[in-house]
Amino acid sequence: MADPRFFDRLGPFTLRALAEIGEAEIAAGADPDRELIDVATLDAAGADELSFLNNPKYLSAFESTRAGACVIAPKHEDRAPKGIALLISKTPYRAYGIIAHAFYSDEIDASPSGAADLIDPTATIGTNCEIGPGVSIGPSAKIGDNTSIGTNTVIGRGVQIGQRGRVHANVTVTHCLIGSDCVVHTGARLGQDGFGFAPGANGHTKIPQLGILRIGDDVDIGANTTIDRGSSTDTMIGDGCRIDNLVQIGHNVVLGQGCIIAGMSGISGSTHLGDFVMVGGQVGIAGHLRIGDGARVAGGAGVMTDIAAGASYGGLPAVPVRDWHRQSVTLRRMIKNKGTSDE
Amino acid sequence: MADPRFFDRLGPFTLRALAEIGEAEIAAGADPDRELIDVATLDAAGADELSFLNNPKYLSAFESTRAGACVIAPKHEDRAPKGIALLISKTPYRAYGIIAHAFYSDEIDASPSGAADLIDPTATIGTNCEIGPGVSIGPSAKIGDNTSIGTNTVIGRGVQIGQRGRVHANVTVTHCLIGSDCVVHTGARLGQDGFGFAPGANGHTKIPQLGILRIGDDVDIGANTTIDRGSSTDTMIGDGCRIDNLVQIGHNVVLGQGCIIAGMSGISGSTHLGDFVMVGGQVGIAGHLRIGDGARVAGGAGVMTDIAAGASYGGLPAVPVRDWHRQSVTLRRMIKNKGTSDE
Amino acid sequence: MADPRFFDRLGPFTLRALAEIGEAEIAAGADPDRELIDVATLDAAGADELSFLNNPKYLSAFESTRAGACVIAPKHEDRAPKGIALLISKTPYRAYGIIAHAFYSDEIDASPSGAADLIDPTATIGTNCEIGPGVSIGPSAKIGDNTSIGTNTVIGRGVQIGQRGRVHANVTVTHCLIGSDCVVHTGARLGQDGFGFAPGANGHTKIPQLGILRIGDDVDIGANTTIDRGSSTDTMIGDGCRIDNLVQIGHNVVLGQGCIIAGMSGISGSTHLGDFVMVGGQVGIAGHLRIGDGARVAGGAGVMTDIAAGASYGGLPAVPVRDWHRQSVTLRRMIKNKGTSDE
Repeated sequence: MADPRFFDRLGPFTLRALAEIGEAEIAAGADPDRELIDVATLDAAGADELSFLNNPKYLSAFESTRAGACVIAPKHEDRAPKGIALLISKTPYRAYGIIAHAFYSDEIDASPSGAADLIDPTATIGTNCEIGPGVSIGPSAKIGDNTSIGTNTVIGRGVQIGQRGRVHANVTVTHCLIGSDCVVHTGARLGQDGFGFAPGANGHTKIPQLGILRIGDDVDIGANTTIDRGSSTDTMIGDGCRIDNLVQIGHNVVLGQGCIIAGMSGISGSTHLGDFVMVGGQVGIAGHLRIGDGARVAGGAGVMTDIAAGASYGGLPAVPVRDWHRQSVTLRRMIKNKGTSDE
Repeated sequence: MADPRFFDRLGPFTLRALAEIGEAEIAAGADPDRELIDVATLDAAGADELSFLNNPKYLSAFESTRAGACVIAPKHEDRAPKGIALLISKTPYRAYGIIAHAFYSDEIDASPSGAADLIDPTATIGTNCEIGPGVSIGPSAKIGDNTSIGTNTVIGRGVQIGQRGRVHANVTVTHCLIGSDCVVHTGARLGQDGFGFAPGANGHTKIPQLGILRIGDDVDIGANTTIDRGSSTDTMIGDGCRIDNLVQIGHNVVLGQGCIIAGMSGISGSTHLGDFVMVGGQVGIAGHLRIGDGARVAGGAGVMTDIAAGASYGGLPAVPVRDWHRQSVTLRRMIKNKGTSDE
Repeated sequence: MADPRFFDRLGPFTLRALAEIGEAEIAAGADPDRELIDVATLDAAGADELSFLNNPKYLSAFESTRAGACVIAPKHEDRAPKGIALLISKTPYRAYGIIAHAFYSDEIDASPSGAADLIDPTATIGTNCEIGPGVSIGPSAKIGDNTSIGTNTVIGRGVQIGQRGRVHANVTVTHCLIGSDCVVHTGARLGQDGFGFAPGANGHTKIPQLGILRIGDDVDIGANTTIDRGSSTDTMIGDGCRIDNLVQIGHNVVLGQGCIIAGMSGISGSTHLGDFVMVGGQVGIAGHLRIGDGARVAGGAGVMTDIAAGASYGGLPAVPVRDWHRQSVTLRRMIKNKGTSDE
């Protein structure tokens, strides 16, 4: 289930209600009055929760799920475990998105309580903190001792920030737990929705983003950088990471300890970096990849494959840095030779 | 003329005054006391409006314009339609910029009315809206029913936002009309000036940006993304578009319905995308291009040509994706062969 | 020394205290009770100041420094000038960072004086200024005549902005001197810490960024753009520059007059651009380079070498634009030929 410090859940809903909401059909044998209390992944769902199967890669997880109900495409109906209630949809991810949205409504990331009440009475502020003017701190948020929050920064509901933190001006932090000794530079956006939706020919259906963002100790996050919270698992930034300005980190990304990410780089959803990975400026790393400990990526590279621990990559698409330099040299030679004969 | 909900116009000015302001010369036969009330494009200008010709591509539009006056370079004087009053300048775009600035002065994008009056009394707020603390809403702005505006967000003069909108914290929206069911994530900047100026050896002259930004229904705009308003025509984002974090969309860009733009991509001025175009992360698309319906652009690509409907492109410069993969394979093979003989 | 308008200095400290703070050893012959009042570069340091040597490139500067004390690696001990007090560390840059931090503590970039006191009483506001609601202006800041500051913008301690400025909403400006006739668009971040730290296997040590940001007259800075202040020298933006949205400019970068930097480009630390350099969109320029007057860089390029005045470069890695086009043509031909024989 989504972390109740950050998300309010509605429901329960009957299978019949969810079928109607998700524009799906109840498969034969399922009890329309069965009550579901939450959505969850195939692995995590229990008997009173609803899951979904969209990617055939997860068929075996589907066959062994303990979920009480599941949204699936018609073609996978025969793989269902016994006793599960099926909702049949030609667009199961879209149907799941709509249903998840019924459990977890959108909520605006700030206590809308009016200018007279910037700091929620249920928020906890440590000793020796500086809180600038115009700072808003949401319900149940906790700010550690000796932490400063700059002017006009917005701290959402349930957010926790450790000791000796420096959160500069005009920052937004929601759905996020931050360790001690962290610096968040001006204009950074932490914990907002990731880019998650079920694409469709008649429109793209938003999938509620129900994970959070976890940031370790001694992390430095640059100006106007954006780090999305997780979609179901959490986005995680390890201890000691240094992240420069205008970096984008997608949902469910995991950074190990001590990673260095230079300015304007982007890490797409669900990619994992090991410890002490170094990423140059304006690098793009595609989604769902694994980058090993101590790997290095040269500035401007576009990474489309896993990278082994300790390896150095560069170029678009990225290849081992040595090969990239050879490619460049080869190209330069070719046009020199051509030039001689052409002109 | 510029939309009076967003822009205040000064004037009228005599041709003599405008010649002086723009450091241009009045051509023989023109009446220096002729009054002009506005600037406009060659196509749209009427008898009491001033236009300009900078690019020879528009010579035929110049020949048939109904503009009362026009700033042009000396070499095009003989192409002028009858009765038009000419201002002659060696730098007509620069002269136009200065003149347009006389009609439309800079204005800061917030009601500067002091902290006691964050929401202008002429603004309209629908029913069941949440308005966070520190939110500023400008004169004549309209917020639809059930829309929420996050803490410290600034909504400029004349802005309209439809129903069920979610505008998160620390956002800035000016010169912009937004449909219903839209989400604007934290730190997004909508409707500011585009990058428009007349370059010059002694300095670059700003051209007033007199268009607006129009956003359809069911659009999702990511954190810290920037979308500039139009320079004379409008910037337009079609229904159902999904735009990720840290995206830049230039002035006069048009996105059709259901486009998906992944993080850190940039679309340069006056480029048009059709419906359901998919753009990967960190893509750059040059200005004044046409990208057809359903086209796809791979992450990291640099697009410098039009793309036909349904085509897939990748690489820098971008070529059909199949060719890009072949180029990469070819390069990898070449250095392998070289490697064998070199070492 | 760091500019006292922006930085508060602690100290003096004895050599003994600094050795302990920096986990370094005092070399034989040095007086542990010697007092140091500041940190400084090898060139600038005086008899009561401490410097450091990290890069062998600066060995001759070390040999002739007038610094009273210096942190160095053991291997360089024999190159020391007479009379200097040495602190020996295997990680001298890290040790320097910790020591510099003792002199210059972190400070949050806003007057934390509570919502009732947004504009510090020691700030000076010119005549005919507009100051939006929620604007915070720090101690000793100076705003010139006829300058407007948009809603919720934060102006830090000591910042100066000239006449006729337009600083839009939700901007942050710290450690920065801005000339007259400048426009700063919404969400821009000016003067924050650069990406400066001593990397280490057990963690990366932050180096205090003690320079400032100097912006000339008639400069235009785009929405959500970030410009870091200097680390020891200053970051400088020349008169008449035009900088688009979502641009990143690193610490100690120098831009000459009239440079044009299109959207989403990044200039890494300590690189210098001459006058009237034109940089296309999504360009990356590596650190410590020299780009000559009037040079041009095509969109999407990754610049890894110096560029001569007047030259045009493109590609990744960037080469002269003509060569880049030839490389592209050559690659396209090669796969065409391959295609014929392969299929």
